[in-house]
Amino acid sequence: MTVDLNADLGESFGRWRLGDDAAMLDLITSANVACGFHAGDPTTLRTTCRQAAERGVRIGAQVGYRDLAGFGRRFVDVAPDDLAADVLYQLGALDGLARTAGSRVGYLKPHGALYNTVVDHPRQAEAVLDAVVAWSEATGAALPVLGLPGSVLLDRAAARGLPAVTEYFVDRNYTDDGRLVDRRRPDALIDDPAEAAERAVAAARDGRARSFCTHGDSPGAVQMARAVREALTAAGITLEPFS
Amino acid sequence: MTVDLNADLGESFGRWRLGDDAAMLDLITSANVACGFHAGDPTTLRTTCRQAAERGVRIGAQVGYRDLAGFGRRFVDVAPDDLAADVLYQLGALDGLARTAGSRVGYLKPHGALYNTVVDHPRQAEAVLDAVVAWSEATGAALPVLGLPGSVLLDRAAARGLPAVTEYFVDRNYTDDGRLVDRRRPDALIDDPAEAAERAVAAARDGRARSFCTHGDSPGAVQMARAVREALTAAGITLEPFS
Amino acid sequence: MTVDLNADLGESFGRWRLGDDAAMLDLITSANVACGFHAGDPTTLRTTCRQAAERGVRIGAQVGYRDLAGFGRRFVDVAPDDLAADVLYQLGALDGLARTAGSRVGYLKPHGALYNTVVDHPRQAEAVLDAVVAWSEATGAALPVLGLPGSVLLDRAAARGLPAVTEYFVDRNYTDDGRLVDRRRPDALIDDPAEAAERAVAAARDGRARSFCTHGDSPGAVQMARAVREALTAAGITLEPFS
Amino acid sequence: MTVDLNADLGESFGRWRLGDDAAMLDLITSANVACGFHAGDPTTLRTTCRQAAERGVRIGAQVGYRDLAGFGRRFVDVAPDDLAADVLYQLGALDGLARTAGSRVGYLKPHGALYNTVVDHPRQAEAVLDAVVAWSEATGAALPVLGLPGSVLLDRAAARGLPAVTEYFVDRNYTDDGRLVDRRRPDALIDDPAEAAERAVAAARDGRARSFCTHGDSPGAVQMARAVREALTAAGITLEPFS
Repeated sequence: MTVDLNADLGESFGRWRLGDDAAMLDLITSANVACGFHAGDPTTLRTTCRQAAERGVRIGAQVGYRDLAGFGRRFVDVAPDDLAADVLYQLGALDGLARTAGSRVGYLKPHGALYNTVVDHPRQAEAVLDAVVAWSEATGAALPVLGLPGSVLLDRAAARGLPAVTEYFVDRNYTDDGRLVDRRRPDALIDDPAEAAERAVAAARDGRARSFCTHGDSPGAVQMARAVREALTAAGITLEPFS
Repeated sequence: MTVDLNADLGESFGRWRLGDDAAMLDLITSANVACGFHAGDPTTLRTTCRQAAERGVRIGAQVGYRDLAGFGRRFVDVAPDDLAADVLYQLGALDGLARTAGSRVGYLKPHGALYNTVVDHPRQAEAVLDAVVAWSEATGAALPVLGLPGSVLLDRAAARGLPAVTEYFVDRNYTDDGRLVDRRRPDALIDDPAEAAERAVAAARDGRARSFCTHGDSPGAVQMARAVREALTAAGITLEPFS
Repeated sequence: MTVDLNADLGESFGRWRLGDDAAMLDLITSANVACGFHAGDPTTLRTTCRQAAERGVRIGAQVGYRDLAGFGRRFVDVAPDDLAADVLYQLGALDGLARTAGSRVGYLKPHGALYNTVVDHPRQAEAVLDAVVAWSEATGAALPVLGLPGSVLLDRAAARGLPAVTEYFVDRNYTDDGRLVDRRRPDALIDDPAEAAERAVAAARDGRARSFCTHGDSPGAVQMARAVREALTAAGITLEPFS
Repeated sequence: MTVDLNADLGESFGRWRLGDDAAMLDLITSANVACGFHAGDPTTLRTTCRQAAERGVRIGAQVGYRDLAGFGRRFVDVAPDDLAADVLYQLGALDGLARTAGSRVGYLKPHGALYNTVVDHPRQAEAVLDAVVAWSEATGAALPVLGLPGSVLLDRAAARGLPAVTEYFVDRNYTDDGRLVDRRRPDALIDDPAEAAERAVAAARDGRARSFCTHGDSPGAVQMARAVREALTAAGITLEPFS
């Protein structure tokens, strides 16, 4: 049994530091690296790409709305063509930094409000996929897409011939219909590493998703990622990038 | 005798339109496309890349300071590592859009204040070249660099094994020591198409530069580019991208 | 019979110019001046405030979402407290420029997507009003609010003791339920000055609104504003700022 | 003997938090609050203004270059008129938030690279002062300016009739000619609270400056401010806002 363990990295911006990317990269197998629209100045992104490449951690493009002030956590009613171009711009920017670090962008994951929007917003979901399809055609390799199981994004990604990778958040609570609990609610996040680790093992055994996300930007992020990694390993589950 | 004719395009931003890219692309052989830092929203850049690719016009990355409010025309004292990362970010972003349009970024030209700074600012010039070298190594092809003849940028580009392409502005006045007259001075720009066309022919005959720039964003830009193109052609000079 | 004639001004940004503020200010009685979040660099805003003050045209704060790339025309799901602070920030910034020009901010009008959102989005409407109430208390004068007749914004503004000023767009079509036709639809805008002028006179006679808006940023904006002004005057309607 | 103790606050931006403003406000007498150009989202600024007003701490406008990515620490060659308008915009924005918190902007202090630039850059120094003079005339009260002793800014401020307040950094090293050591050098900052406290007491006894700055954004900022405050108080020096 194998799972991929991912986290959101590269989310510093200039003077403002967020998370400990180097420490997280020792624990995860895939890094969702910000692309500059919701977070991530180029120097940070370049450093994170280098550190990921050195450790053999796969780099994913964590694309978001153009909204630094809101950290990409606010829905923006972007027109589909603009959203597709925004996604391509971010993909290319990060891929350039990844390539000069000896790696490539290996998948795409929407960030924050965009992640939640494409669960059931067909126009924005298709716009993101328009970008991924265009990118895949230009590079000659289908780019995998991470998302919520049952989301419009993943359903249509599969329909369009893209690898659709299901994701489970070990430290987020879900609603009864399988969505993430809104961050504005007090029960949105799970702070206890032991609880998150337990959930991760149970979800792995259930085969709930191919990739597990643990947050990279909370104060105890490294501790939680370590607890999750150790619990999965102890349960005989292999951590490796999804294929 | 052949020269390349280039212009700055892709410089609209959202609601704000600047220049007539489609008309200019019918007249030039190389397009210096903005990369989003001084101008150019992703939708504009994507459209301009498509139009350039359709016409067989080469796409160059017109990289600039991160300064939308100043249109990249104000010197910013960016640290070299940050500048190199900024350049790589812009290069990658535009290249992604160019590739999905069936083309590639074929050269780099600094924009505005960065163009003038790297004439004699070794640290910023080297930072730009650090990015170009890293990009060239990652893509396996040395990326040409456009700049002012005699500039630190071009001298060091050549020293580092990059194609250094000299450029002449047909509609800008020069100081006695070969720099561009500051835009804040009234005599910075040449507005008369006939005068610019005459200068272009003379400069081509002198072999002053391999690429000629005509401005894309002034009210009479299309008329001037047409006058320059027609005069060069009438003088038996072939217009084609530099090789 | 009197009406106020307003237009959106101050919407240039750095190199990108939009509209002819000076010409428009000769025709209107109230200027909705951008505040920097959707458009308007400080130099432009200062100049527009000076020109308005010189002509005795009242200055209003045209507050919008923080979205230069979208020109404030895209809904952003801003949390109410953040929206209130964003509005106060914009109000203060413009008022500072207005005061140094010898005037003051005399009213508030939401811009673009925010204008449409507060028609029926109670939380964002109340957030805007929270800012206006706080501002009014701090300055000792109730700040009038312009908006769509029947909007949540105006209804609650009145309920909170603020002057609620109804507005009619002479060059925009309306849906049957009194909303503005979406800009993405081809019939959103009325381009014919004669038609707009006729609508203005009819609306003035009907007493449909206390303030009439004519657009400041379209190519024929000045011509249209002149046609509207002349038609209203010819019909015996006095143009003056609402009181 | 009395001195003013100031610190830079309000420097968070959206998701990115920086410093502990509430704790610092219990220790200082003047708060240099960011104005949104180098740092400070409106919600943060509003909160900091409220907390300052509650504690009777004076609010100053810490104006900077429009450069979030560089945190205002990079020189930008802004034209004087644009810089004056930028400063007025920031002053007004913060003053609006301060007024709704029951306070006012009580002084201006340039931030980061602008602080260093106006030490000996007459055009930018005069541009800042143009804004302060215009603001002072509009509000009817001369706005004090904080800066480096011997700087062009303070010299010309005094010449133009503005209160010029000398400042001393208790936790920064100075060059022999009285400038701040460049932040890029390892000896720029003093990290030891005891050393800073000792320097503060010595500087107070020497009458070196009317206002002392202790940094608000370093990890040990609160501890250092407390050490400085306690040492000054123990030495019989009264802490109160400059008059």
